[in-house]
This record gives sequence, C-alpha cells and structure tokens, in this order.
Amino acid sequence: MPELRKDPITGRWVIISTDRSKRPSDFVRESVEIKGTGVCPFCYGNESKTPPEVLQYGRNGSGPNTPGWQVRAVPNKFPALGIEGDLDREGEGLFDRMNGVGAHEVIIETPDHRGTLATMNEKQIEDVLWAFRDRMFDLKNDKRFRYILVFKNHGEAAGASLEHTHSQLIALPIVPKNVVEELDGARRYYQDKERCIFCDMIRQEVDSGVRLIGETDLFVTLAPYAPRFPFEMWILPKQHASAFENHQSLIYAGLAKALKDNLARLDLVLDRPAYNLMIHTAPIGEETSEHYHWHIEIIPKLTKVAGFEWGTGFYICPTPPEESARFMREAQLKPADRVASPPGPAL
Amino acid sequence: MPELRKDPITGRWVIISTDRSKRPSDFVRESVEIKGTGVCPFCYGNESKTPPEVLQYGRNGSGPNTPGWQVRAVPNKFPALGIEGDLDREGEGLFDRMNGVGAHEVIIETPDHRGTLATMNEKQIEDVLWAFRDRMFDLKNDKRFRYILVFKNHGEAAGASLEHTHSQLIALPIVPKNVVEELDGARRYYQDKERCIFCDMIRQEVDSGVRLIGETDLFVTLAPYAPRFPFEMWILPKQHASAFENHQSLIYAGLAKALKDNLARLDLVLDRPAYNLMIHTAPIGEETSEHYHWHIEIIPKLTKVAGFEWGTGFYICPTPPEESARFMREAQLKPADRVASPPGPAL
Repeated sequence: MPELRKDPITGRWVIISTDRSKRPSDFVRESVEIKGTGVCPFCYGNESKTPPEVLQYGRNGSGPNTPGWQVRAVPNKFPALGIEGDLDREGEGLFDRMNGVGAHEVIIETPDHRGTLATMNEKQIEDVLWAFRDRMFDLKNDKRFRYILVFKNHGEAAGASLEHTHSQLIALPIVPKNVVEELDGARRYYQDKERCIFCDMIRQEVDSGVRLIGETDLFVTLAPYAPRFPFEMWILPKQHASAFENHQSLIYAGLAKALKDNLARLDLVLDRPAYNLMIHTAPIGEETSEHYHWHIEIIPKLTKVAGFEWGTGFYICPTPPEESARFMREAQLKPADRVASPPGPAL
Repeated sequence: MPELRKDPITGRWVIISTDRSKRPSDFVRESVEIKGTGVCPFCYGNESKTPPEVLQYGRNGSGPNTPGWQVRAVPNKFPALGIEGDLDREGEGLFDRMNGVGAHEVIIETPDHRGTLATMNEKQIEDVLWAFRDRMFDLKNDKRFRYILVFKNHGEAAGASLEHTHSQLIALPIVPKNVVEELDGARRYYQDKERCIFCDMIRQEVDSGVRLIGETDLFVTLAPYAPRFPFEMWILPKQHASAFENHQSLIYAGLAKALKDNLARLDLVLDRPAYNLMIHTAPIGEETSEHYHWHIEIIPKLTKVAGFEWGTGFYICPTPPEESARFMREAQLKPADRVASPPGPAL
C-alpha cells in the first residue's frame, strides 16, 4: 500500500510508493557530461561575450572583464526581467499586471570549464557562496525589489543552457507564491508552538536518523519527510537563521563543505544526475524572524512532471526518503570528498 | 520590458516575455510519433494483459475482456494508490500520513492504435467523455474519496508510458492543494462580487477577443491571461456549472467538437506536440456551487521547468497568450476538423 504524506510546512501532500520503490539504477536518465566543444562565454578570454561584470574575485591588477578572476558575476544576457524602469502597476478589467522589473544575474562559479560544485575545492565553493551573498547585499539596496532567489540548473535536463558551471540570481518586485506559502506555514506553527518548525524538524530527524543524509558541526542534510521528487534533499543550518546572507563568515566555509559532500554523494549514487538547487531564504525586510529558517533544496531530475501533478499539485515520489537517505549515507566517497561520518542508526 | 501578470483565480504571478516572444517554430521539441512496434496491451486481442475492465462501450455479445469494444476502462496495472483498505491516518512526531487509498484507472479511448483525440471522429471522442463521466459517478459511491481527477499525458515527453491513446483517472481521499487554491480564489471573488469569476472572465475574453482561440454554441477556448506555459489553453462551458459530470447529455457532444477542433489546431500549429490535459472539476459533494466553474486545461510540453520555477512557483512564459491565441485562431484546419469560425477582432 502506498503512503500519503504531508509536508508540515506547506501542507502539500505527496504519494510515496512503498511497494515497488525505485532504486538509483531504476531511473532512466542521462549523466551530465561536460563536452567542452565550441566557444564558451564563461571561459577566460571570452569576457567580452557577456554583459560587463558586476562582481569578480581573484583578479590581480588587470582591468575589468579580462581573465584572471576566480568567480565572476554578470547580468544575464537574456534576462527574464528588465533592470531599468519604475514599477508600473495596471489593471485590465479582471486582470492585474505590472511591468517586469527585476534583476537577473549569472554567477560563473569557476574559470575551469570542467569544474562542478561536486569537484571544485572547498575554498572555491566558499567563494561562490560569498558571491551570492555580496550580490544579494548589493541588490537589496534597490527599493523596488522584495525577494531574491539564488538557484542553479545543473545539466541540460534541468534547464541549463550552458554547460560551464554557473548559478543564477533573480531579484523580484514581489514575494513569490511558494515563498509566501512556506513563510505562512512556518508562521502558523510558530504562533501555535512558539518554536521554529524547521528547528523542530532538525531535532526530530537527527534523533530518528532514518532520513538523515549527513551532519557536520554547522549543517544537517535531510531527505524531507514528504519529498516531491526521488532523492530530493534539504541542507539546513543547525542554528536558527532566517536569511542566507545574514551570517557570520564561518558559516559559508561550513556550507561549502556540506555542499561538496552532498553533491559528491549525489554524483556517486545517481551517476552524475542533472539537478536544480534553490536557496530558500527570507524576503527582503524579514531577515530576522523567529519562525523562518533558510535552507537549500536540491532536486535531481529523475522523473517527469505530468498531468496528475499539474492537475493536483500532488507529487508521486517513487523512492521513499528513508531509502534515498540510506543510499546517500552509504555512498563510499573518496576520503578527500568526505567531510563527516554520516550518523544515524544502522539500518 | 517583460510583463508580470497575475492569474485572478489562484493569485499566481507569471513573467511574460514580450520582447523576444517565441513563435511556434522557435521551440525545440519532438513531434509525438506513433511507432506501433511491439505488443500493445491496449489493442484488440490483448485484453488479458490489463486488469479486468470496469467499463466498456460497444461490444456486442461476446464476453468481458474480449475484442469488440469502442472505449474500455481498466484499473491501472501499476496504480499510484491502492483501492483496498480503510483510510488510516497517523502522526509521526511533526509529520502526518495516511495510507494511500485511492483508485487509479486507465480509459483506453479507442481500439485504433493510431488514433488521437485530434484525429478520432467526434462520436468516438464523445464516448470517451461519457466514459469519464460514468467512471466518476461510479467512484463517487465510494465514501472514502473526496476528489476525482481525469487527466491525459499525450506523448512520452508529457509522461505517457504507452503510446496507444488513453486517459487516466485518479480518485483521492483528500482534495488536492491546487484544487483547494482554485476553489478558494473563486469563493473569495464570489463573496466580493456575487458573480462567478470564470463567468466574468468568459464575458471579458469574448468581448475583447485577443486571447480567444475558439467559440462554439456551448464552449469557449481561451489562452489564459497569465499562462504558466506557452500555448496553454483552457476550454470552458459557457453556461455556469461546477462539475464536469453534472450536465445534460448535449454538453458532451459539444465538448467533443470543441476538443477535436482545439487539439487539431494544436497539432497543426506546433507540429503534434506532447501535452498534458486536465479536467478541473468540483470536489465530491460540492458539485453545484455558484462560485466554481469546471473547465479543461491543456498544456503543451514545450519548455523545461527549472530552478526558478521550483524555487518561486513563478513561471516564465516565452509566448504572450495574445500571440499563441492568434496562431491557434489562424491555423487553417481541414474543413472536416473545423467546428466554428474563430471569432474575435482582426489582429
């Protein structure tokens, strides 16, 4: 008998297949291959092929938009939103619209065309996290924006149009629906219990261990209780904090460690799958709430979203999170990629 | 400058690209091809390869699960939910679950392995709609169920695992999130205006004509104002009704006409794309409300859902609905497939 499970934050129900649970090798998928053919606008020497940079780390001496950088942020050449202009709002009978003001940037994570967040060294990954943070702080000065999403599409199947590893950042003039839902759910729980629901979840999951993927001194990685997708994972800071960018500096080195470990495991268990990564963080102006807890969500691209999901908002997850967490914990990383013994009970 | 638009029912915002609007030929996609290789469990003579039928039309004389049928419904061989057992609910610390009780059926729309809803004749399509209705009425007798979703995945890219044309039906023990959202939005509007928001939308869209795809005496087909996907379309009955299954018989012949016309246009404009089709109808027990208006949503599979969409619930639609509606209206159908002159102003 399958199981219906409810995500305690958003109230979203999912169907977990328990009888014919899918193992990693049961998914039809293509591994992400870096081909390295053609001219890459994100490689050294092609800096003029992107819009002028808004951030770079590591370049020593030479002028802007030249080689030598270690991390580089540029406006997206084909932005989803336009950076210029005021926020005009307008009605049209029943309907509401506003002009599409926003920022859309690309963070080029390394000059190495063959690098990925699973293979880059920890210092490099930490620099990427600092770049996210610096760009967020800069864009928060723009009073038109209310939310900043940092996300990554890894691999063509996950929507990446260029293979050179990069993340994206979009600043929006409204707080998006999914964020509002998460905030509302967390707020309701706090009003009831005066505790953060994410903090409670971390405590329960570390205690039980069955959905725990990894734990370091600063972070916990979980397979969520009601995942939308097989091998979905969440990385949460152990100490309560609402905003990704509002931390003391130590946290970013810790997150780099956890990210590298988790993504290396994912590559090993699922043979380098395409994935989406999203930073869930508080809206601008709500960075220090008691109820919201920032975190990272990673969803490997293994299944198709079809009519049932579009019609209901329900998801069918063919691998129970207890199973996916076990596969992830048991992955035998090379010692260099390993940051912590995966804890939890022997299963 | 792109545009942000809000769906008035769900409150969902989308980003509409207006500068570099994508035309039908700009989408990279594969046409749905019916290969006809291998043994098909949905073809005549293979009736024993499916679970025993729960409905058939057209067979004359011979026993159940033999050839001769025109439409046939069977339980899904690999159901997402189990039909047996009580609805046990249980907590686990923070978390809630119930056992996965539900029905999951397949409606085989024609014995013709090469047929599709765009090419079958109207009478055959009407029979499919009657089969949906009959299965819904039967399942509504089961007091464990609160919602019935009928949907169709057409083509492998849209999630179909068998190419022989079929729809699916899932009966659920809870009303799904997306349905609750739509109902709540419609209820709020009704409380404010004492009018159905869908009826208002139909009036406004028929008047303006810019997003109108087609109109018959009983149905209107629109490109919605704030589509999640390019070439998304909604088919709505002109007369207010909350439930697909609660109609006088005439409506199903009318819907068959509209469906065939709309899907034939879609095939012509986008060269036989994969698509998902969902019937949005009222939950069990709420079939006659003043505020909710059943309809069909069709989303061709042309774009990838990636990190931005998963992180925000926002969608980026690269074709304004005014453009997609124009392409659909102007498609030159063969006279046999055409049911009504597409109205609306000359653009």
